[in-house]
Amino acid sequence: MTRHGRSGREAARPDKGHDPSAVLLWGVHSVEAALGNKARPCKRLLVTSSGMERIATAAQARGVRVEQVGDAEIDRRLPKDAVHQGILLEAGPLGRVSFEEAVLDQPAGSRLVVILDQITDPHNLGAILRSAAGFGATAVVVQERHSPPLTGIVAKAASGALDRIPVAEVVNIARTLDELKREGFQSLGFDSEAAYDISACDLKGDLALVMGAEGDGLRRLVREGCDRLVRLPTLPRLPSLNVSNAAAVALYEAMRQRKATS
Amino acid sequence: MTRHGRSGREAARPDKGHDPSAVLLWGVHSVEAALGNKARPCKRLLVTSSGMERIATAAQARGVRVEQVGDAEIDRRLPKDAVHQGILLEAGPLGRVSFEEAVLDQPAGSRLVVILDQITDPHNLGAILRSAAGFGATAVVVQERHSPPLTGIVAKAASGALDRIPVAEVVNIARTLDELKREGFQSLGFDSEAAYDISACDLKGDLALVMGAEGDGLRRLVREGCDRLVRLPTLPRLPSLNVSNAAAVALYEAMRQRKATS
Repeated sequence: MTRHGRSGREAARPDKGHDPSAVLLWGVHSVEAALGNKARPCKRLLVTSSGMERIATAAQARGVRVEQVGDAEIDRRLPKDAVHQGILLEAGPLGRVSFEEAVLDQPAGSRLVVILDQITDPHNLGAILRSAAGFGATAVVVQERHSPPLTGIVAKAASGALDRIPVAEVVNIARTLDELKREGFQSLGFDSEAAYDISACDLKGDLALVMGAEGDGLRRLVREGCDRLVRLPTLPRLPSLNVSNAAAVALYEAMRQRKATS
Repeated sequence: MTRHGRSGREAARPDKGHDPSAVLLWGVHSVEAALGNKARPCKRLLVTSSGMERIATAAQARGVRVEQVGDAEIDRRLPKDAVHQGILLEAGPLGRVSFEEAVLDQPAGSRLVVILDQITDPHNLGAILRSAAGFGATAVVVQERHSPPLTGIVAKAASGALDRIPVAEVVNIARTLDELKREGFQSLGFDSEAAYDISACDLKGDLALVMGAEGDGLRRLVREGCDRLVRLPTLPRLPSLNVSNAAAVALYEAMRQRKATS
């Protein structure tokens, strides 16, 4: 899948100094994945000597410009407490991937899509990308507004998955659900108060798992756009799961059912 | 289960001003759970007018001292960006719960325990407590050292679960695994490189799910203390899941198998 164009939102994220259009990526997994993704612009790699040992193969394969620096130089460029492992990549944003390209143009029958309705925590978003990639989802769909920029913190939490699974940004999630319905998708909206237990649902075929923001849950029009509201089989009277944990369980159950019949 | 004594480590956590032995809890779910937990010392509740509406029932049931304040007074006491929803509880630490009490003294046959080997991120720890409580685990076991203090950030990420599931602190996890083996537990250590897929394992009976730190994984003696190393059925060549996501999937699969035969 080619990723063309540029996301204006990414270019506007607040980086510290240097090239204002740079996206900073750090840590061995996210930088390794970026270097291995031909669609990811890679400008310059800053490494400490221990960082170099961990990333040398990927850096060489990509042929990126490498500069050896001290830990302090990398610390200075990153959020406090960033676990960079001596590796910082000055990259560019990924090109925008369209919903059509990422989802509708993919072979019908067993597409599995995760739709995130205003999930604002970058750690949760990153963890969901990681689980979606790990369980072989087709794509993740987020709303263009009210979603964290797909840069450093998300990439780090995604541990490489940001460069391995298409993330399509859409303007209106309720409208996206209508399109999916016309395409024959089943869409399940997650709500801890729902009557149906996901483990009793048929999760085969083209499927969209729709997760809402922690606290507020799915917005009304998004809820109404889902074919069914479902819950995880957790104990009553206990708080619902963290949204990335819930997404991981839903993805696992979907893949389990698909494998059982394949 | 009574929780007696006090954890010295909790008393030493860095709170901002006021009573140095106070544990601060914030947000509707964690404060509601604390107010409902008789074993949790509750000293004083600071609420804004909107916070009061959300917590009034639980505060009244507990009979805690309530003071109405402005948002700024709560902001001032908490980490930057803490989502407190106008609710701050000055609480005390939970008494220490022993491994014997939390695990060994519980009825044998279907105990389900999550053991965390040096998971240092408080958000991950909190999310795991939440999933463990949600899927009905018996207890969570952490190492006394190298584990985050069971205070505000963990409590907030646990969204009430910290006051609803026993967390036992042990000195040595490898030794704990030996004790579990003598008790007839099966212990499964999670390792993304392992040969066995957890979905093909029998997860019934007394079971311990052993999760290691992100990055480093399980330490050698802990690995060796497990009966078997297992992996989740994720795609090869992709990064492993976030540890709290992995724990949620493992807990879900264990509960699914147990329900199927009950």
